[in-house]
Amino acid sequence: MSLPESLPESLADKTVAVLGGTGPQGRGLARRFADAGLPVVIGSRSAERANETAETLAGATGGKVTGADNAGAAEVGDIVVVAVPWDGHGDLLRDLASALAGKVVVDCVNPLGFDKKGGFALEVEEGSAAQQAESLLPDSTVVAAFHHVSAVQLEDPEVTSVDTDVLVLGDVREATDLVQDLASAIAGVRGVYGGRLRNAHQVEALTANLISVNRRYKAHAGVRVTDI
Amino acid sequence: MSLPESLPESLADKTVAVLGGTGPQGRGLARRFADAGLPVVIGSRSAERANETAETLAGATGGKVTGADNAGAAEVGDIVVVAVPWDGHGDLLRDLASALAGKVVVDCVNPLGFDKKGGFALEVEEGSAAQQAESLLPDSTVVAAFHHVSAVQLEDPEVTSVDTDVLVLGDVREATDLVQDLASAIAGVRGVYGGRLRNAHQVEALTANLISVNRRYKAHAGVRVTDI
Repeated sequence: MSLPESLPESLADKTVAVLGGTGPQGRGLARRFADAGLPVVIGSRSAERANETAETLAGATGGKVTGADNAGAAEVGDIVVVAVPWDGHGDLLRDLASALAGKVVVDCVNPLGFDKKGGFALEVEEGSAAQQAESLLPDSTVVAAFHHVSAVQLEDPEVTSVDTDVLVLGDVREATDLVQDLASAIAGVRGVYGGRLRNAHQVEALTANLISVNRRYKAHAGVRVTDI
Repeated sequence: MSLPESLPESLADKTVAVLGGTGPQGRGLARRFADAGLPVVIGSRSAERANETAETLAGATGGKVTGADNAGAAEVGDIVVVAVPWDGHGDLLRDLASALAGKVVVDCVNPLGFDKKGGFALEVEEGSAAQQAESLLPDSTVVAAFHHVSAVQLEDPEVTSVDTDVLVLGDVREATDLVQDLASAIAGVRGVYGGRLRNAHQVEALTANLISVNRRYKAHAGVRVTDI
């Protein structure tokens, strides 16, 4: 399969696995990656549900989308996006550490709690979900990205261009460059370097603020960085 | 003095005090408030330095800018912007608690540390600088805002329009509305509600990420919220 002209060389021959690919965020990202012409593997706890979602997305995008359980998806992905709920994030990654060795793992998990006053950031012992991933996956290269992209917009086929930047954080330049390319492969999106992994907490937690924005303005807010 | 047409009713007869108004951020904000036609009082530890800065800004903007020590500025301001270094933030506010009673206090302090790897968020016992202000100023209404506005851009007279949104956080609607108006009084800037004060930490800390962006892209990055 030849790559669409818009895809950069860095993504040639790369398969993207999306763990938690049957949830709204994972499904939305998978759809956009498939739209961009990348082969995608949907991972889920249930291979059956993953296959169902994959079939739907393959039909909707005309792309190459397959399904597997999370372990199977982790095995075949060159870039592995982690889009699972925070509850269970640590256990899943601990289980998959050897399957994920040597790979770029893109954590987009937001550890948030909710009460009557709305969303708020949960305390994470390691500092952030991304740093928890880093500590559980010593043989992987962890990058944090895709925290603020609206699942509603990603999943809406009427939204042909997603109006947001994606902040990409990590400590290995080659990996953050790759994930910036992956983000920029989504129509409308620009991948922007956003700092080291130790500064991931506030990027994850900012999602609580965007939820407040969404409630106040009846919107699906994203973030653009100016002057770059 | 009649208000410029662009200023909303909420800011009529309001004097803005800027504590730490001789530092780059405070000076830059004071310049833009004066540009907008608001009476501004520069506060500083040294009334003499405050007067010098006030004189310079009055000359540059043609606005009404005066100087005082921080306590004097806190007394006369209707809206009091706190733009002091994090180191000393708590002591200053504790001293000024009675002068600030009944007022809207706008905290724009970013508790950051720096090492060879760049900037990072400091831990704050109360959760954030804004929450520390709230705990020290029980009779004031604390709002968090202006964390990400580039001092370089604010101070540059060639920058006629500052390309950024200002996230405004707080628990009292009337006060966040007022500070959104204050932010929007700066040419180019839009004040956007950004959630409750308990979610201020990540907004303050995100400044570390923007510093990384500035280094990588040689920019003075700001943030725009999309879809609103």
